[in-house]
Parts: sequence; structure tokens; C-alpha cells
Amino acid sequence: MKNDLHFLFQKLTHGVYVIGVSCNGENNAFTASWVMQVSFTPLLLALSIHPDHSSYKMLIDGGVFSVNVLPKERLDLAEHFGLPVNTDKLAGLAWHQGKTTVPVLDDAIAFFECKFSHECEAGDHRLVIGRVVSGAVRDPQALPMNYRDTGAMDGSSSLFPEDFI
Amino acid sequence: MKNDLHFLFQKLTHGVYVIGVSCNGENNAFTASWVMQVSFTPLLLALSIHPDHSSYKMLIDGGVFSVNVLPKERLDLAEHFGLPVNTDKLAGLAWHQGKTTVPVLDDAIAFFECKFSHECEAGDHRLVIGRVVSGAVRDPQALPMNYRDTGAMDGSSSLFPEDFI
Repeated sequence: MKNDLHFLFQKLTHGVYVIGVSCNGENNAFTASWVMQVSFTPLLLALSIHPDHSSYKMLIDGGVFSVNVLPKERLDLAEHFGLPVNTDKLAGLAWHQGKTTVPVLDDAIAFFECKFSHECEAGDHRLVIGRVVSGAVRDPQALPMNYRDTGAMDGSSSLFPEDFI
Repeated sequence: MKNDLHFLFQKLTHGVYVIGVSCNGENNAFTASWVMQVSFTPLLLALSIHPDHSSYKMLIDGGVFSVNVLPKERLDLAEHFGLPVNTDKLAGLAWHQGKTTVPVLDDAIAFFECKFSHECEAGDHRLVIGRVVSGAVRDPQALPMNYRDTGAMDGSSSLFPEDFI
């Protein structure tokens, strides 16, 4: 059943993003796919994040985050920022600080800078709502990465429960 | 700037779904693209919905909703269920009632049945969190529709504000 549930949930459509966080002069970034727009006025994005994730605390304390849209061929970046390591994952990569101080990847197709608005419970995750205060398309022709196309890269199939209940 | 924001937000990746609701023997369904998984245990989906939408009240009162994944070539279904009309949009189409009584479309690639868990504020929308209690893949080979590929079908470009603030 576990495999069936993984296969079923792959029929939902998610992108692949690198989320940048910044707090007290420290920066970090991590790969996420549970991101979507949730409001037009104000412009809000929702991000579902595991509260044990070290970047969750940085996001809440810093009050800002970036959403960097990965191009479909850059699986290497998705994999790099998905590693569960405590080293500075931005080291050696091309990035700059956005208006809100969050890291923006130079290789992103597009980026959004968000100010933390509020959060709500979401089972084993937290749903963080951010107001989009800045952003731009950097490569108008490039195609965004689709989470479905990353296959078993993130090992998420093992995270599904055995059954619905 | 308005066109620029529409173009920017199209770099986010969303699917296209028909959301079914059911309350006191009445059924309805509508097209939505702001849907994503937000938790593994329990299995939760989030749906952003406008609170003035007539189906929002039905969803909350009925306490259940379905998420039907549209195949990429069925723009006709996305358009049909996106119409802002008060008629029964399910009439004449192939559907059945799921375990939780919600409408499940026979032409969906896959479907999820959810029980309302809780909701939270999301600007001009409400973020509804549902626990997935049932679901199945109906067409394993078919490709899901990507919201980006529906172009200007839903007229959403006019809903973006002039600028970020």
C-alpha cells in the first residue's frame, strides 16, 4: 500500500524550489516542493515545512524567505540543497542577497521574496504563509522543474504511511 | 506591472483539479489549481478557496471534499467546472459518489477523498486543510494537467494587484 500511496500522490502537481532563509547575518537554503500561491490581494505564498528542520527556526526568527524556481534540467541543485547537512550549502554557488536580505540563487528561473505573515498546523509539517514583497523572472524562456520528474531523488516514498488512516 | 506579476507567478507550478463537494444530498464541483500535499502523517492536502464561492459553504457544512486530477488534454472539463454559474455542473457528466459521499469524476486520472480538518486565513482566500481518507489512481499512464498550460482560460491575470505591496 505504501508504494501505492506514493504513486497516487505523484498525480498531484508540485514544482521544485530552493527556499532561502536569513537571520542575524547567517544564510541557508533547502529544497522544497510543497509551495503554492494562496491569495491575490495580498499576494501570498504557502510553504509546508517540517518544524524539526533547522531552517524552520531560521525562517521564523528571521521573518523572511525566498522561493527560487529551479529550471527543469538542474536536478543537481535540487539534490545539493536537499542534503540533510549542517554545512553552508550556499558556499561556492552563485547567489546574492535580495532586498529583504534572503539568499537569491543566480541560477533560478524566477524568485520571490516573502515576509513571514503567519503559520498554521499541518500534521507533521507547518504551513508557513508569506507575503510576496519582491520578485522577478530571470530567465523567461526556461521551463520550471516538476517534482514528479525528480523520481525517487528525495527518498520521500518511505515517508508515506502504510494506509490512509 | 500587472502583466509582469501574472507572468512571474506562472513560474510557480500548480496542477488543475475539479473539487467535489457534497452536503445534505446536494452535490457540486468547481475547478481549482491551488492544491498541494502538506503532510505525510496524517496525509493532508491544502486547498485555497475564495470564501465567497458558493461551494466554500457547502464544503465547510458538509465536511468533505474530493480532489479530482484532470488529464492534460481535458481543458473542456477545467473550463466547464470553472464557470461561475449556479446550475448543477455535474449534470450530464459521468461521476459517482465516493465513500464519503463526495462526487468523484469518472474522467479523472486520480482522485482523493478528504475530510475537512481545519482552515486558516490566507488573504482574500481561505486555506482549507483536509485529511485524505480514500483515493485511487484511475489511469496510471495519463499525464496530469499543468495550470501553466491553460493560458488565459480562467482570466486570473486580471486578479493580480498592480504591484507587490
